[in-house]
Amino acid sequence: MDFSPSERTQALTARLHRFMREEVIPAETVYAAQLTGGADHRQWRQPVIMEQLKARARAEGLWNLFLPDLEGGPGLSNLDYAPLAEIMGHSFIAPEVFNCAAPDSGNMEVLHRYGSPAQRERWLTPLLDGEIRSGFAMTEPEVASSDATNMRATAQVDGDHIVLNGRKWWTTGLGHPHCRFVIFMGLSDEHAEPHRRHSMVICPLDQAGVHIERMLPVFHDYDEPSGHGELSFNNVRLPLGNVILGPGRGFEIAQGRLGPGRVHHCMRALGAAERTLSLLCERAHSRVAFGKPLLRLGGNADIVANLRMAIEQARLLTLKTAWTLDTQGIKAALSLISQIKVVVPAVAQQAADAAIQMHGAAGLSDDVPLTRLFAYARVLRLADGPDEVHRAVVAKLEAKAQLAKGAHA
Amino acid sequence: MDFSPSERTQALTARLHRFMREEVIPAETVYAAQLTGGADHRQWRQPVIMEQLKARARAEGLWNLFLPDLEGGPGLSNLDYAPLAEIMGHSFIAPEVFNCAAPDSGNMEVLHRYGSPAQRERWLTPLLDGEIRSGFAMTEPEVASSDATNMRATAQVDGDHIVLNGRKWWTTGLGHPHCRFVIFMGLSDEHAEPHRRHSMVICPLDQAGVHIERMLPVFHDYDEPSGHGELSFNNVRLPLGNVILGPGRGFEIAQGRLGPGRVHHCMRALGAAERTLSLLCERAHSRVAFGKPLLRLGGNADIVANLRMAIEQARLLTLKTAWTLDTQGIKAALSLISQIKVVVPAVAQQAADAAIQMHGAAGLSDDVPLTRLFAYARVLRLADGPDEVHRAVVAKLEAKAQLAKGAHA
Amino acid sequence: MDFSPSERTQALTARLHRFMREEVIPAETVYAAQLTGGADHRQWRQPVIMEQLKARARAEGLWNLFLPDLEGGPGLSNLDYAPLAEIMGHSFIAPEVFNCAAPDSGNMEVLHRYGSPAQRERWLTPLLDGEIRSGFAMTEPEVASSDATNMRATAQVDGDHIVLNGRKWWTTGLGHPHCRFVIFMGLSDEHAEPHRRHSMVICPLDQAGVHIERMLPVFHDYDEPSGHGELSFNNVRLPLGNVILGPGRGFEIAQGRLGPGRVHHCMRALGAAERTLSLLCERAHSRVAFGKPLLRLGGNADIVANLRMAIEQARLLTLKTAWTLDTQGIKAALSLISQIKVVVPAVAQQAADAAIQMHGAAGLSDDVPLTRLFAYARVLRLADGPDEVHRAVVAKLEAKAQLAKGAHA
Amino acid sequence: MDFSPSERTQALTARLHRFMREEVIPAETVYAAQLTGGADHRQWRQPVIMEQLKARARAEGLWNLFLPDLEGGPGLSNLDYAPLAEIMGHSFIAPEVFNCAAPDSGNMEVLHRYGSPAQRERWLTPLLDGEIRSGFAMTEPEVASSDATNMRATAQVDGDHIVLNGRKWWTTGLGHPHCRFVIFMGLSDEHAEPHRRHSMVICPLDQAGVHIERMLPVFHDYDEPSGHGELSFNNVRLPLGNVILGPGRGFEIAQGRLGPGRVHHCMRALGAAERTLSLLCERAHSRVAFGKPLLRLGGNADIVANLRMAIEQARLLTLKTAWTLDTQGIKAALSLISQIKVVVPAVAQQAADAAIQMHGAAGLSDDVPLTRLFAYARVLRLADGPDEVHRAVVAKLEAKAQLAKGAHA
Repeated sequence: MDFSPSERTQALTARLHRFMREEVIPAETVYAAQLTGGADHRQWRQPVIMEQLKARARAEGLWNLFLPDLEGGPGLSNLDYAPLAEIMGHSFIAPEVFNCAAPDSGNMEVLHRYGSPAQRERWLTPLLDGEIRSGFAMTEPEVASSDATNMRATAQVDGDHIVLNGRKWWTTGLGHPHCRFVIFMGLSDEHAEPHRRHSMVICPLDQAGVHIERMLPVFHDYDEPSGHGELSFNNVRLPLGNVILGPGRGFEIAQGRLGPGRVHHCMRALGAAERTLSLLCERAHSRVAFGKPLLRLGGNADIVANLRMAIEQARLLTLKTAWTLDTQGIKAALSLISQIKVVVPAVAQQAADAAIQMHGAAGLSDDVPLTRLFAYARVLRLADGPDEVHRAVVAKLEAKAQLAKGAHA
Repeated sequence: MDFSPSERTQALTARLHRFMREEVIPAETVYAAQLTGGADHRQWRQPVIMEQLKARARAEGLWNLFLPDLEGGPGLSNLDYAPLAEIMGHSFIAPEVFNCAAPDSGNMEVLHRYGSPAQRERWLTPLLDGEIRSGFAMTEPEVASSDATNMRATAQVDGDHIVLNGRKWWTTGLGHPHCRFVIFMGLSDEHAEPHRRHSMVICPLDQAGVHIERMLPVFHDYDEPSGHGELSFNNVRLPLGNVILGPGRGFEIAQGRLGPGRVHHCMRALGAAERTLSLLCERAHSRVAFGKPLLRLGGNADIVANLRMAIEQARLLTLKTAWTLDTQGIKAALSLISQIKVVVPAVAQQAADAAIQMHGAAGLSDDVPLTRLFAYARVLRLADGPDEVHRAVVAKLEAKAQLAKGAHA
Repeated sequence: MDFSPSERTQALTARLHRFMREEVIPAETVYAAQLTGGADHRQWRQPVIMEQLKARARAEGLWNLFLPDLEGGPGLSNLDYAPLAEIMGHSFIAPEVFNCAAPDSGNMEVLHRYGSPAQRERWLTPLLDGEIRSGFAMTEPEVASSDATNMRATAQVDGDHIVLNGRKWWTTGLGHPHCRFVIFMGLSDEHAEPHRRHSMVICPLDQAGVHIERMLPVFHDYDEPSGHGELSFNNVRLPLGNVILGPGRGFEIAQGRLGPGRVHHCMRALGAAERTLSLLCERAHSRVAFGKPLLRLGGNADIVANLRMAIEQARLLTLKTAWTLDTQGIKAALSLISQIKVVVPAVAQQAADAAIQMHGAAGLSDDVPLTRLFAYARVLRLADGPDEVHRAVVAKLEAKAQLAKGAHA
Repeated sequence: MDFSPSERTQALTARLHRFMREEVIPAETVYAAQLTGGADHRQWRQPVIMEQLKARARAEGLWNLFLPDLEGGPGLSNLDYAPLAEIMGHSFIAPEVFNCAAPDSGNMEVLHRYGSPAQRERWLTPLLDGEIRSGFAMTEPEVASSDATNMRATAQVDGDHIVLNGRKWWTTGLGHPHCRFVIFMGLSDEHAEPHRRHSMVICPLDQAGVHIERMLPVFHDYDEPSGHGELSFNNVRLPLGNVILGPGRGFEIAQGRLGPGRVHHCMRALGAAERTLSLLCERAHSRVAFGKPLLRLGGNADIVANLRMAIEQARLLTLKTAWTLDTQGIKAALSLISQIKVVVPAVAQQAADAAIQMHGAAGLSDDVPLTRLFAYARVLRLADGPDEVHRAVVAKLEAKAQLAKGAHA
């Protein structure tokens, strides 16, 4: 269990740190100023500075770092990439700068691993080049998506076409001016065995029958220019060539997609938690009440200590997950993947709540990024499966392991 | 310790319930549709329906219920008013409908108890009539306001005038189109004994030198048309007659203001927590995953039980606080007032977080009022003194009581 | 909802306080010195001082206070008795002094309410006189007693006799030298409807076939001279006249027994929690580290505040439960009874754990009563139904109430 | 950061596992039966089976494994030893079997690193051979030992002698029939700089002036035949040659001793936590209520999942601490050492509390080892510094690190 970064990762870490410090962090306010916001995503524009940052990042080779192996990527393992993802997590705008933003990174991985040559040429190449963006349409408004078998949208084969119907929401990135397609997941054959029923289909946004209904705010924030959207599919007719791997193989693809994606999410969230803790400490150090810095009042030092311990542990658990994925594969990592999905967002939320409190009312405003850090962590407790589902997975696998151990003892 | 509602309260409760059910709750969506929002408070308008609701509430005698005794009020005790405040807490728009919204209710009480006849005629009468609204300018951006002695803004006597300087923020209600004045608190004599240094001054918003700098969002929400504002005072020159009770008596007034105000806040927050729990239960009952309603999955029933127990206890504690205020006065109630300020917002926040989780991603959107209920509770953990300060008060009074007990034993 | 003590309760409170301070507390060390302990209950002796204290308490009319109404009792309501039970909870030896110890108090209530004249004369009279003690044999070692329908021991009618078979444990008080009988609960008719299957039978300890197997320690403490015992019943043949209310009515009796019993338990536990908090505060005040009393270090003041708030709320909830039992009966109080069974022991355990920590290693020893206070609270989280069962009851009743509310809204 | 076990550790792990399974675990009941207990340590005997197990363990080379490097030890690093310590933690009797029990292991390390040749020959050799045992006398009854500078016992140089006076308690192992000496820590020069004031002195138990006052129970358990004792020193006169490293160097030695010792403690505690979780899972699987195994009722699966996540994280943190100690030394590991001292005992206590609850009342008795596992974890929250002190260390180092980072940024 060796978590040491490879020499290559060390070199990338140093360059990424420098780029973050010198380029990304100073650009945050410019980016914010160039944003055009509000509920109507048709008003959203890509801030000019983002394209400038992307060009510079690509020129420096800090591009598509998430891709495990590829002509266009550096071929980093999950463990190699993990510390880089954490660094990116320090800024909300960083992932896109390095072309490592969700859900594009997951979509690129899916197309890279499972896409046909035609699919890759048509959709993967521009994604890898950062020319377009994409969404992932899985969650539905009418049913509890924590139970994926609830899914009601359909993707039915009709000759050499596939026809999509249904409604999806929380499709992240849907509002981005560069968003060109979504990967749609729907029911193709309700009589097949449970994990053979669904298909993943590439659906262009300008296809007839596709309609963006609205953008959804998170704690009143539309997160422009990416956003989270609701969209409807009414008899959307696509060639069978748009189905990834073929009908009925959606869950097989989802399985492969989720492991690394959750590690990425969690490492970014840990970067966000570290930034939160820095903000908290800075405030606790500089703000004075009753004649002392806040840090020296009451239980405030305990808050710092508890967060440091929680973050430290959550990071080690995530690194172990990445290492297990790399060395033993997805099946051996299932419990760990669910564990980090519970542990990391909870730590990040706890950190953000504590940092808000340490800032007083200022912590609730936009003068500091704390409510955004809070909302980011809060979303993660639901995205890619709510805490409850992941705890159940961990318990089930634990009970099984204990039984097996008992049987051998 | 009798928490039973008086006959009068029972009658008012019944009428208030009816009015909430038949008038206020159905008006919520109309009100939302009539809102004009955004960061610029000069665009904010009072929704027409609010004035209609106010007129109807007044006609039915559901008006100024918070006022302990007065020509214009019903003369309810804190304990009498508590259940009414809880009912109002079920809707964000309700308090204004009944002319019981913060900070006006606190300001009215201050003017009623401490105002000169001239102050009362000029400012209290239109407040009691619901014609104008007001703010309370105490918190400052540059210093930790948890320690009130940090206050830097000044209110200096200059002959028969008083001159205000400084910057205040988180003045709730400042953006309301009807807001006409704030009660400003500032340092008058830094050499006086600590609780004799500050004054409270009535300052009209159209006074020369007063400037509204901006509105402050809470979790990205400007809470229009009331809002929370930042404002600056530059050599604002007012007649001495605008000083309430006279220079140096600010803390004396604050003390009297805060006890009942905190009971009101807490009872409203408990109303909000009850509404939150209802939303949670409704979702847990109606949403199905893995073949069962969510309520019957994993630890979800425990969440319901824990919230019921927490709310129940918090309400009893708040009622005891109201009863103690009524029967033994503010000094005997000091620990209890701080206790409810810690306990109630925490319960309400816990309820909102759990309800969001039970709703899945929908809980984060504006389709349900949960993020607003969350933000409301979160604000309360900072407003009127952060948790930390109140815990310290409780501990100090407890240690004192234990020592006294030990001495007698 | 009037929690004010009646004049009678006030008078009793004052007398009880005085008796505790002047007689019981000073006798604690004498009592401890007169104890003969160890795992073998046959070595246990009743400390002489206990009989002296009992005589004095009875002479002062502080006797059988728990009994709601009776020639021998004061006829106090649950709400009247609650503060008296809390006072008794300050000393482990107090309940027996006042003839209010569990499980005798519950057994006396059962015999008083449901016993035949013969049963009352033979068993209730000496219990009321404090001449004998008794046990309650319900929990079984082989099955999860949280689900009462699991019960395997049998009480089968055979002509004009009833025959007991099975094994019981955690029969509190079984080791007491004065213990003369247990009330045994067993299955009489497995084909009856679920709540008509079991009987309660008075079984003398010297009956043929009854065997005390052993005493059970709690955290290594045998709690002599009362103890918790395991006992077996092998074809124990008793006249039908020993069945309380008649065969099949065991659950009906249990229902009536448990409500007031749980209120008593909880109020005593709150007394124990108050004593714990006093010990904690005393230590935090007198012990110095790093140049300050512990109370002023780090988060220690928060610990005091949190306990005060938790105890205060738990007490109000328990008083409300007592009041509801008195004014609306057991059915209306079901949720509240389960609520206090979850809330109060948890608070008491939290207090004991914190007090141990504040005392350092001394807190773990017998120099202070903290581990005993801890164990007492810990037992209560399991006795009379574990937390989990009570949380489930609260959730179920809450969901039902919310549905009913929704239906009316 | 490579936590992989070396080949040597893997081989030892396999042999240790086998020895535990085949020799130690089956011997537990024999050991318990051979114990002679009670409050009077003069009745305590070393169970015969322990000496048999020691002989076998030594013959198999499973002996003194904790020693980092030595003729008598295997020369394992902290990281090498960590998994072995965890395995030993599965049984309370295991550490002594392998001559790795506290406080002897710490004392051996001190003598090995800092002892004079004469000290090593006289005291270290028989310890390494498992012929004698020893104690460590630091904590004092009269002062808060969390602040080591409070220490009042004295060790004063008088010519070529050193004279010990004072009272110590919680000297673990003092009651063991083989205990021959303690390492005493006392004040030598109150005018020296703070970390140069104290000395460590080897004090034989049969020296004139040394008196064992009593044994101290933990949750009523005397933990015979080792125990925790209180002892007094009255003008105990020893040659200067008994001072380790020389007068005034006590803290220097303590510093070196505590790092590895805390890692050992924590790894053993994690072994105990794993055993606890196994017991919990076994019960949750086999016990049935309401027609289902407990594991499938309410929030029980969440309890399993939460413990698995907490133990997993705590173990990784402890391994990182061992690795940091090995590769970067004690100073770099200070925060981590304090972190594990807070995190691991808390996890172990939480596990034991949950396992008790899952077992129902049986969990409180001696039929299962859960109260002992609970007490073991509870002690660790106080031994070697209470949680509060370690949290303060973590917070202080974190604030310093954040400031340094800020300065560089």
